[in-house]
Amino acid sequence: MKTRGNLIVISGPSGSGKGTVCQGLCRAMSGLHISISATTRKPRSGEKDGINYYFLSREQFEKMIAGGQLLEWADVYGYYYGTPGEPVIEALNAGKDVILEIDVQGALQVKSKFPGCVLIFLIPPTRAELERRLRNRGTDSAEEIERRLRWAEKEINEVSKYDYLVINDDLESAIRKVCTIITAERCRPALLDVEMLLQRYRNA
Amino acid sequence: MKTRGNLIVISGPSGSGKGTVCQGLCRAMSGLHISISATTRKPRSGEKDGINYYFLSREQFEKMIAGGQLLEWADVYGYYYGTPGEPVIEALNAGKDVILEIDVQGALQVKSKFPGCVLIFLIPPTRAELERRLRNRGTDSAEEIERRLRWAEKEINEVSKYDYLVINDDLESAIRKVCTIITAERCRPALLDVEMLLQRYRNA
Repeated sequence: MKTRGNLIVISGPSGSGKGTVCQGLCRAMSGLHISISATTRKPRSGEKDGINYYFLSREQFEKMIAGGQLLEWADVYGYYYGTPGEPVIEALNAGKDVILEIDVQGALQVKSKFPGCVLIFLIPPTRAELERRLRNRGTDSAEEIERRLRWAEKEINEVSKYDYLVINDDLESAIRKVCTIITAERCRPALLDVEMLLQRYRNA
Repeated sequence: MKTRGNLIVISGPSGSGKGTVCQGLCRAMSGLHISISATTRKPRSGEKDGINYYFLSREQFEKMIAGGQLLEWADVYGYYYGTPGEPVIEALNAGKDVILEIDVQGALQVKSKFPGCVLIFLIPPTRAELERRLRNRGTDSAEEIERRLRWAEKEINEVSKYDYLVINDDLESAIRKVCTIITAERCRPALLDVEMLLQRYRNA
């Protein structure tokens, strides 16, 4: 019903499968706008500017912070990460649902600015499973994995601030659930809908 | 995720297609509990006690009102209609999603008692279409149909109190949307989920 799109935030602990679920979403649903984050870290091999990230200098990034141009941002180990607001607002106004794939702190920042956004918390069913995924990625040291696992435990305490909780025990089932949530959220009544209905129901 | 069922209220103007959508839901989804209303009007031919309605005497109904045993009730042209609470609570505790098919006033009564319930407003796309449906039912006089159409216009003003708005332009599409909403609502995080997750994530 909504003529404006919904802002859908998919977040969860590092290793929860956010990225894979988002890729699956793009295959399963049409008309979605996937937000691209900005960062000051260097591109890894194969990463392209404007596709994987907007790769910015520290000066550029700090200018965006100062100008209020980011929906959320964080300094992670000396590198900035954030979500540029303009492309998101444009896509929402064009009636597209926008997907943000960000961490838990970022999600809560977005919620405080856009209370109408939809927060989805994605997490593997157990700590052992999250640990297995982090190890399989092969990108983190044993200490780093341990740190991420402790952090995940803390993040679970934020679940009550989320609109939806999706346990990622099976990838296809998790993608289906997120699609269902996005489709259901399109049935939220907006002021415009009520005005349009009233027009169609007024005695001619 | 939720271990307790959700209370799903499907309502809308008289003639909106609530009953037909509910019948479709039962075919499309399993594990739903469809609530049966109580009334003091006489059974029409073919209607069975405990299937279509609980047919009660005025004394029995007023005893239930006095005992707070009804989730909502109304006096419609001298006949009582209402929703007995006990079967609903039992089904919710057994983990079943419960469907109430009731009018707009009843829906708002239920929301005030159970703020966690899910209100779905169902309505045909235009006044002309609602009028056509009411005429095709063949149960109401021209004056009664006119009265119901005016009433529908008033009820649309309550849409903003609803969680979802489903335009019933095509029956199968409306049933699909309601199924999607019910499925998405099962992903709402409950306190129990968070406790369970924390247990599974605590360092062994």
